[in-house]
Amino acid sequence: MTTARAPYYLDCDTGIDDALAIAYLLEAAADESRGIDIVGIGSVSGNVSAAVGAVNTLDLIALSGRTDIPVAVGEHHPQGGEFRGGAPHVHGANGIGDVEIAASGASVVDESAAEMLVRLAREHAGELRVIAIGPLTNIAAALRLEPGLPSLVKELTLMGGAAAVPGNITPVAEANIANDADAAAEVFAADWFITMVPLDVTMPNVFLEHHRQALIDSGRPVAVAVGHMLDYYFEFYVGVYGHRASALHDPLAVAIALGDLELKSAPVVRVLVDDTAGPGRGQTVCDLRGVYNGFPEQSGAHTRVVLALEEDFAPTLLARLLLA
Amino acid sequence: MTTARAPYYLDCDTGIDDALAIAYLLEAAADESRGIDIVGIGSVSGNVSAAVGAVNTLDLIALSGRTDIPVAVGEHHPQGGEFRGGAPHVHGANGIGDVEIAASGASVVDESAAEMLVRLAREHAGELRVIAIGPLTNIAAALRLEPGLPSLVKELTLMGGAAAVPGNITPVAEANIANDADAAAEVFAADWFITMVPLDVTMPNVFLEHHRQALIDSGRPVAVAVGHMLDYYFEFYVGVYGHRASALHDPLAVAIALGDLELKSAPVVRVLVDDTAGPGRGQTVCDLRGVYNGFPEQSGAHTRVVLALEEDFAPTLLARLLLA
Repeated sequence: MTTARAPYYLDCDTGIDDALAIAYLLEAAADESRGIDIVGIGSVSGNVSAAVGAVNTLDLIALSGRTDIPVAVGEHHPQGGEFRGGAPHVHGANGIGDVEIAASGASVVDESAAEMLVRLAREHAGELRVIAIGPLTNIAAALRLEPGLPSLVKELTLMGGAAAVPGNITPVAEANIANDADAAAEVFAADWFITMVPLDVTMPNVFLEHHRQALIDSGRPVAVAVGHMLDYYFEFYVGVYGHRASALHDPLAVAIALGDLELKSAPVVRVLVDDTAGPGRGQTVCDLRGVYNGFPEQSGAHTRVVLALEEDFAPTLLARLLLA
Repeated sequence: MTTARAPYYLDCDTGIDDALAIAYLLEAAADESRGIDIVGIGSVSGNVSAAVGAVNTLDLIALSGRTDIPVAVGEHHPQGGEFRGGAPHVHGANGIGDVEIAASGASVVDESAAEMLVRLAREHAGELRVIAIGPLTNIAAALRLEPGLPSLVKELTLMGGAAAVPGNITPVAEANIANDADAAAEVFAADWFITMVPLDVTMPNVFLEHHRQALIDSGRPVAVAVGHMLDYYFEFYVGVYGHRASALHDPLAVAIALGDLELKSAPVVRVLVDDTAGPGRGQTVCDLRGVYNGFPEQSGAHTRVVLALEEDFAPTLLARLLLA
């Protein structure tokens, strides 16, 4: 049975939009016909500390009755730096919009996220799908533990970066990448096929108040919880969009990893991460110079950069979160 | 009489699109009703060496009978670097598409471009309009000669950079800025109001074969010359656009400096030039994070970044070059 299902590892920093992503992934996995096996979840410091992110994750999966999924705590500090406390102004002090959800009381597993990722990659050699929706510290740590990781992993999908739109933490850098630019530089340089889901698509795809209300009205435990969390997130985004809304960063990466969306523009191009100390630090430098000519093939390119979707993601996300 | 006309200084690296820009400026100045006084032109190494650019400029203005305009040779080397020979694959070995135009035999003036710019800025204190369509080496040199230059100059309009589109010399850097990133960093940091005309608007505005043919058919000496030059430029751009065409970089900056075009989007934002040795070197890091919210005012911002025009520039440019 498990051999027939596709194994997925999720790396996250839960986080309000991570909670949406986890909810999306759990609902997809609950659909037996899809053959999705969540074999492990790792946490990393980003929106919150790795430790808090792991607890939030355990509590969320318990709300869905999925206490069987192993959760590992990952790296607390970015490479060569210190964790600076996350983004409480965006995600609330507890990372999930200061919403209280039932404590699962469940425990994390006795290995680090990087160790778990390497173990799973070996157990599911050539089959493991990795989805990374936080800083790439754990993924880089796993690469150091197992330099052959790229050949063990089937595909890596990550939420991060900004290609042809502004960053969200500096004029050119997106938070996941900028929070550990050194790790990101290693991950993008490694020899695997990456699907990058940047701000170019996550910013134009938003939940509005009527989506949030539908989640709360559903009565479904996870949907209700994320609906309440979004109240906090919506307030933060008033300063960005000029009205209450939320970007759909992390769930969009999960949906794309699962092949649920049609991509309108997603060229495979060379990507470098700026790991200097200059004003470009944390930027995903994507070579989009082919934009005027249909993106001719680039030798050595191994990153698919999602620039546009065929349709709005919000209805798909809402439907997934409201269905059994 | 001269006091009633607005004084303009042009800094260029002539160059095929510089030739178009010079032609545009000469035609505008020829219209007495506009009150445009070209008080000096400086050359700088970029598309070609400063010395070759000065000769091309002298020959072009002679074709229009404007041998009265003083032309000064500017900096040969970028700050802290060496001039690497220009872009003969784009502009031809002689910088003007290997077209032979009549040698004017005229001489450059006995001062450097930076010295001329400083002198003119003092003579026309508070009134001088500076248009820079090459690397910013001369402008930075003038700032060092006269730190008070920003208060002497009325406005600085420059062709350079890329804000929300790819670069043309690296994935993120445009040639004028990247050819002297150190000078550009100084110029953008100085306390004057800058209008930046980046690839965002110069790449979508193109001349096509029928425009080129109209120039040649006009029989007007300068128009015919640039029409022939464009043959070379069009061939280079096949690799960019997939068909014969030319971006209208430099003439667009002149047209915007002269107030000839209506701007659709031109927010005043903070801009830093990346002068690191990293992958972002030469990038104009524009803070466009306000894009989702109508670009709220940014404290300290003094650069207007032209992102979109109300209409296609090609008809305006063609009409200007064909009129007396």
